[in-house]
Amino acid sequence: MKHKPVRYVWVPVVIALLAIPAGFIYVNWSKSGSGAGLYSRQWLPQAVFAYWDPDDFYDSVQTMKGTFKGKECVACHEGVTPGIVKDWRASRHSQAGQKVYCSDCHGNDHQNLHLPTPDVCGGCHATQHGQFQDEKRYGFPSHALAMERALDAKHFVDKPKAEVTACLQCHSVATKCDSCHTRHRFNAAEARRPEGCITCHSGPPHPDDETYFASKHGQLYLKEGQDWDWSKPLKKGNYKAPTCAYCHMRNGKHQVADKSIWKFGIRQVNPLTSNNEVKRDQWVKVCSDCHEADWSRQRLAELDKERKQAWQKLYAAERVLKDLRADGMLYPAAEERPPYPNDWMGRYLPYERIGFFEGQASAFFNVSPIERDYFEMWYFDNLGAYKGAAHADPAFVAKGHAAMERKLTAIRRAANVLRTLGEEEKAIGQRAAPQELWLKGEYTEYNREHN
Amino acid sequence: MKHKPVRYVWVPVVIALLAIPAGFIYVNWSKSGSGAGLYSRQWLPQAVFAYWDPDDFYDSVQTMKGTFKGKECVACHEGVTPGIVKDWRASRHSQAGQKVYCSDCHGNDHQNLHLPTPDVCGGCHATQHGQFQDEKRYGFPSHALAMERALDAKHFVDKPKAEVTACLQCHSVATKCDSCHTRHRFNAAEARRPEGCITCHSGPPHPDDETYFASKHGQLYLKEGQDWDWSKPLKKGNYKAPTCAYCHMRNGKHQVADKSIWKFGIRQVNPLTSNNEVKRDQWVKVCSDCHEADWSRQRLAELDKERKQAWQKLYAAERVLKDLRADGMLYPAAEERPPYPNDWMGRYLPYERIGFFEGQASAFFNVSPIERDYFEMWYFDNLGAYKGAAHADPAFVAKGHAAMERKLTAIRRAANVLRTLGEEEKAIGQRAAPQELWLKGEYTEYNREHN
Amino acid sequence: MKHKPVRYVWVPVVIALLAIPAGFIYVNWSKSGSGAGLYSRQWLPQAVFAYWDPDDFYDSVQTMKGTFKGKECVACHEGVTPGIVKDWRASRHSQAGQKVYCSDCHGNDHQNLHLPTPDVCGGCHATQHGQFQDEKRYGFPSHALAMERALDAKHFVDKPKAEVTACLQCHSVATKCDSCHTRHRFNAAEARRPEGCITCHSGPPHPDDETYFASKHGQLYLKEGQDWDWSKPLKKGNYKAPTCAYCHMRNGKHQVADKSIWKFGIRQVNPLTSNNEVKRDQWVKVCSDCHEADWSRQRLAELDKERKQAWQKLYAAERVLKDLRADGMLYPAAEERPPYPNDWMGRYLPYERIGFFEGQASAFFNVSPIERDYFEMWYFDNLGAYKGAAHADPAFVAKGHAAMERKLTAIRRAANVLRTLGEEEKAIGQRAAPQELWLKGEYTEYNREHN
Repeated sequence: MKHKPVRYVWVPVVIALLAIPAGFIYVNWSKSGSGAGLYSRQWLPQAVFAYWDPDDFYDSVQTMKGTFKGKECVACHEGVTPGIVKDWRASRHSQAGQKVYCSDCHGNDHQNLHLPTPDVCGGCHATQHGQFQDEKRYGFPSHALAMERALDAKHFVDKPKAEVTACLQCHSVATKCDSCHTRHRFNAAEARRPEGCITCHSGPPHPDDETYFASKHGQLYLKEGQDWDWSKPLKKGNYKAPTCAYCHMRNGKHQVADKSIWKFGIRQVNPLTSNNEVKRDQWVKVCSDCHEADWSRQRLAELDKERKQAWQKLYAAERVLKDLRADGMLYPAAEERPPYPNDWMGRYLPYERIGFFEGQASAFFNVSPIERDYFEMWYFDNLGAYKGAAHADPAFVAKGHAAMERKLTAIRRAANVLRTLGEEEKAIGQRAAPQELWLKGEYTEYNREHN
Repeated sequence: MKHKPVRYVWVPVVIALLAIPAGFIYVNWSKSGSGAGLYSRQWLPQAVFAYWDPDDFYDSVQTMKGTFKGKECVACHEGVTPGIVKDWRASRHSQAGQKVYCSDCHGNDHQNLHLPTPDVCGGCHATQHGQFQDEKRYGFPSHALAMERALDAKHFVDKPKAEVTACLQCHSVATKCDSCHTRHRFNAAEARRPEGCITCHSGPPHPDDETYFASKHGQLYLKEGQDWDWSKPLKKGNYKAPTCAYCHMRNGKHQVADKSIWKFGIRQVNPLTSNNEVKRDQWVKVCSDCHEADWSRQRLAELDKERKQAWQKLYAAERVLKDLRADGMLYPAAEERPPYPNDWMGRYLPYERIGFFEGQASAFFNVSPIERDYFEMWYFDNLGAYKGAAHADPAFVAKGHAAMERKLTAIRRAANVLRTLGEEEKAIGQRAAPQELWLKGEYTEYNREHN
Repeated sequence: MKHKPVRYVWVPVVIALLAIPAGFIYVNWSKSGSGAGLYSRQWLPQAVFAYWDPDDFYDSVQTMKGTFKGKECVACHEGVTPGIVKDWRASRHSQAGQKVYCSDCHGNDHQNLHLPTPDVCGGCHATQHGQFQDEKRYGFPSHALAMERALDAKHFVDKPKAEVTACLQCHSVATKCDSCHTRHRFNAAEARRPEGCITCHSGPPHPDDETYFASKHGQLYLKEGQDWDWSKPLKKGNYKAPTCAYCHMRNGKHQVADKSIWKFGIRQVNPLTSNNEVKRDQWVKVCSDCHEADWSRQRLAELDKERKQAWQKLYAAERVLKDLRADGMLYPAAEERPPYPNDWMGRYLPYERIGFFEGQASAFFNVSPIERDYFEMWYFDNLGAYKGAAHADPAFVAKGHAAMERKLTAIRRAANVLRTLGEEEKAIGQRAAPQELWLKGEYTEYNREHN
C-alpha cells in the first residue's frame, strides 16, 4: 500500500510538461487572429489602423505596378500629391549629400510598399531610436509601450470600436514616428514646440495642454515663442521659457521616462526613496537652468505635498468602497454584472476591482455607480489636479481638489444608502434584481459582434 | 331630397377661397410686429439687434444733419473714430483706382444712414454673394438661412431674451458680411485664418474650435501659421496645413453646404447614396491635396463608422423614450407641462417630441428629465463626437462616446423608475401632481412679458 | 436706595475701557502666528508661500556668505542661473544710464537677501505703484487687496491646503509685481499682451481667458497680434483690436477698479446711479476709440439687460432657499453641520448664509446640497454668463443662462422634496439623523491638523 501513490507521481509531471508547450501554442494561436496582441481573435482591425500600427496592419496599395527609383517617385508624386513632395524638399532628407528618397523608407516596389515603422527611421537615427526604445525599461505608462500594452489590455478590446479607434490614434506614438515629427518634413524644430505634443496630451486624464498653456511658462511661449529660434537644441540658455520637450526631453533625449517620479499620478509614490531623490536632483537641475536651485526644490516639494493631500482623499474613498465590498453591500455586485466580453477571469471569479493595484484602470464601464464615481475621482479629478500642480496652473489644482471633495461626499452618501438597503435585504433574506447596466448594450452583445 | 346636398356645395369652396387670402393676411399680420419673422408680434427686438439684422431693425443715427461726400466722411471720422478710418485706409476699398468710400455703403444722408446688408456688398462682390446665397438651396443648417430660420422657430422666440441675444449674434452671419470679414478692412487674408470662424464655431453643439485646434492640422497651424502667406488663395500647394476655409471654402468658394454629407451630425445619413458618393469624391479630392487618395477615403470611411456607432446608441435611447411614451409613462407628460409661450399646437395637441424628425431640436427646456437627457446625448455628446471624428481629434470622439454610454445607462435607469411608478399609479388609479418645471419661471409668465 | 445703582456705573465703563486694549491685544496675538492675517495661529505657511507673499514669509537663503556689489552678482549668476541674467541684460534695468543691479532690489548681503515687494518696485516706479495701491479705495475685488482679504477670510484658512496654495498663487498679485511683469525682464510690452493676465484670469469664476479669446477682439489678436508693435502705449490708434490691458488699464494706468461698474458680477448693481453713469461714460469713451459712441452705449446697455435677466433667476432661487430656511426645512440645517474649523460664530450661532450679503462666498463646502446648487448657480454659471456678455462671447452667455435655468429647476425640485420630508418629520415629531457631509473629512479633523 505504501508504494501506490508513487506509481502516479508521473501524472502531474507529464501534465506540467504538456502545459508548457500548450501554453505557448495557446498564446501563439490567440495572437494569430485578424486583430493584434493577446486578444487578436476577438476583434477586427479597421482600415485606418494600417496607418497607426503599420507593422501589424498595413498592406501595400495595389494601384500601380512597377519598381521605381527615388527620383521617379518624386517626379510622379510632384503631380499626384504635391504637398508631401514640397514638405520633403524642405526637409533635410532632400538636402543631404546623399539624399533620402521616398523609396528608401517605403520600398521601391509599388505593389509592396510599406509604411516606415520606428525601426526604419532607426536605421539612420540610431541614437534617437535607441533612447525611445529604452523607455520600455521603465514600464507603462511610456511612449514606447503605448501600443503593445493597449492591444494586450482586455478592457481596450472590450470597448466600443469608436472609442478604441480614438485611443489607438494616440497610442500609435509607439509604432510610428510621425506623431511628433509630422510627415514629410520631419524637422526637429517642429517637434520642439509644445503643439507637437498637444493633439494627444490634452483633455482627461492628462490635461497637459490646458495646464501648460495656462501656466506662466505657457503664457510666455504664447506671447513670444513665435520669435524664438527653434533650430537651437533644447539646452540651457537657448529658450526664454520651457516647453514640453525642454523639460521632458532635455537636450533632445528621446526618453521621457527615466526622470519621471510621479508617473501620471495614477498611484501614490514615495518621493523620498534614494531612486526618486536621484530623479528629483535631475529635475532641480532642469529648473535651475532659469531658477535658483532651492526655489526649484521647494516648488517640487510643493508638488509632493499636493500629491499627499490628493491621496489622502483617494484612500478615504477607496476605504469606503472596500468596506462595502467586505460587507457584500456593493450593488450590483460583480457577479450580478455582465462580464466584459473578453473577461474570462471575471466570468468565473467575479470580483470588484477597487484601486490601482487591483486593476481599477479597467473600471471604465460595467461597474456599479459608486465604483464609477471612484474611478472618475481617481482618473479624472485627481490626474487633473496632478497636472495642474506639476505644470504650475493653480486653477486645475483648485478644480481637481474641489471635485475630489465633492466625489468623496457623494461616495459617502451613496455608501450610506447601499448599507441601509443592503441591511434591509439581509433582514428579509431577499435581493433586488440587479440593474441592467450594459447587459443589453454596447458592452456585451454589440461589442462581441462588432469588434 | 337628392338635390339638397348639392345646394351647399359652394360652402367649402367659399371657405377655401376665403382661407387663402385669410392665410396671407394672417402671415402678413404676424410678420408686421416689432420683432421679425413669423412671431414678430410676440417679441421686441433689443437695440443691439440693429447691428446684427440691419434690414429688420436698423434705424439711422440722428446725431448729425447733412449730406456728405465720401471724402468728407473720411475727413471728419479721422478725428471721431480713427480706428475704422485706419482700417479703411489699409483696405482695398481705399486703394482701388475708384475708391469705395463710406458713403458708398452707408449712404450719404447722415440722418438716413444704413448698415450694409449682404446685398449691398453683393453689389460689387457678386460672385461671392451669389455663392453665399446659393447655400439656401441646401436647407438648414446653412449660413445663408441662419437668421431667417432662427426668427421663424418658435423655440427661439420662446427662449429668455439673454439667450436669444446670444444666439442672434452668431446667426447674424446671414444678414451681414462682417462676421468673417471684420470691418472696416474686410480683407480676405483675415477671413482665411481659422480664427475668423471660431467666435461662433466653438463650444457645444459644434466644437469646431476645440477639435480643429487639437488636431494635427490645427497644431501645425498654431506652430507655423504665423509665417504662411495668407494673401494666397486657398488652393492646392499654397498652405502647409489646412484651415477651416481651406477645406470648407475650397478655392475661396463662398458656399460650404454643397459638399456637406453629415451636416452637423444631427441625423443619420446614408453616406452611400449616389448623391453622397459624389460629395465624398469631392472630399477625397480636398484631402488629396496633401494625402494619398486611398488613405483619405479610408479616413473618411472611418468617420462613417463612427457615425454608425453613435447612431446605434442614439436609436437605443430613442427607443426607450418612445416605448415609455407609447405606454403613457413619461412624467410629467406633455399635457402636464407648461406649453411654450408661443406653442399653440403644443397647447391644443400636447405631444412629446422625441428625436430629430419630431422636432427634438426644440427640447431645450420644459421637457421631462429623461427627455432632456436624451436631448443632451443627441445635441451635445453626439455632436461633439462627430466633430472630433471629422476633424481628427481623438479626445472628443472618446469623450463623446463615453458620455453617450453614460447617458444611455442613465436613461435606462430612469425609464425603469418611471415604469415602476407608472404601473403603481395605474394600479391605484391615481396620478401624482405634475412637477413644476418652468410653470412659474422664465419660460412662461416672464418670457411672455419680456420678449 | 436711590443712589445705589449709581455706585456701579463705573463697571461698564471700566469693562469698555479694558475691552479696547484687550481687543487690540487679541488681534495682535492672533496675527502673530506662523501663518499670516487674522487667522495666523490656525495655519502654517508652506515653503513656496515665501515667493508669493515675501513680506510675510520670505527668509533669505543661507547658501553663500558675503556682501556683494551689483557687478559681482551678475558675474557669478551668469554661470549659476544664466537665464535670469540674460533676461536682465535684455531689460531696461541693465540699459539705463544708471543701471539697476540685482543688489538694488534684493540687497547685497547674501545671507540677508529679500524678495522685492511692490514697495521696492515702487521706489522707482512711483506712479504705477501709487495707481496700483489706489485700487484699495474701491474695495474687494481688487488686485491690491487680493492677498490681504484672502488671508483674513476664514473660509480661505479652512480650505484644504492644496486648494489654499492654488488660491494664493494668483492672489499674490497684490504682494509682488512679477505676476504680470515676469522676472527679470519686467518689460511693459510683455504685460500689455493678454497672456500676461490669463494664468490667473481663466476658468470659473472668471473665465476671461475663454470669453476674450473667443470674442472677435480676441480672434483678431490671435490672428494678427504677433505683428503689432507692443512697445507702443495702450492708446487710441495704436492697436487694431483691444486686449485686457487696453480697456482695463487704459493708457497704462495701473488701476483697474475705478471704472468697474458690475465688479465681477457677484451682486446686482444699479447701473443708472450718477456714479455709475460717470463710469459708463468712461467705458463708452474706451469703446469709441474704434466704434461709434451710440453703438458702444447700446452694447453696454445690452450687458445691463443680460445682468437683469441673470439676477431675475438668481433672486428666484434665493427666494426658494430663504423660504425653506424660514420654515426650518433646510437639511441638514446649519446646527446639524460640522462648523468650519475656524468659524467660531458658526459654532455658537449656526445660521445658513444665503446670498452675497450674508456671506454666501464662504459656501464652498459643508453646506446642504441645495445651498451648494445655489452657490454654483451664482458663482460659476452666473459669472460665466457675465463675462460672456462683457467680453462679447455669445457662447458663454447662452451656456451660463441655460445652466442657471437648469439649476433653478433643480433647486425647485429639491425644495419640494425637502418640504415633503420636512412636513412628515414635523407630523411625527422626529428628525432624521443629519448626513455626514465633511464631519469626518478634509474639512474638520484633517484641516484642523494640517493647515
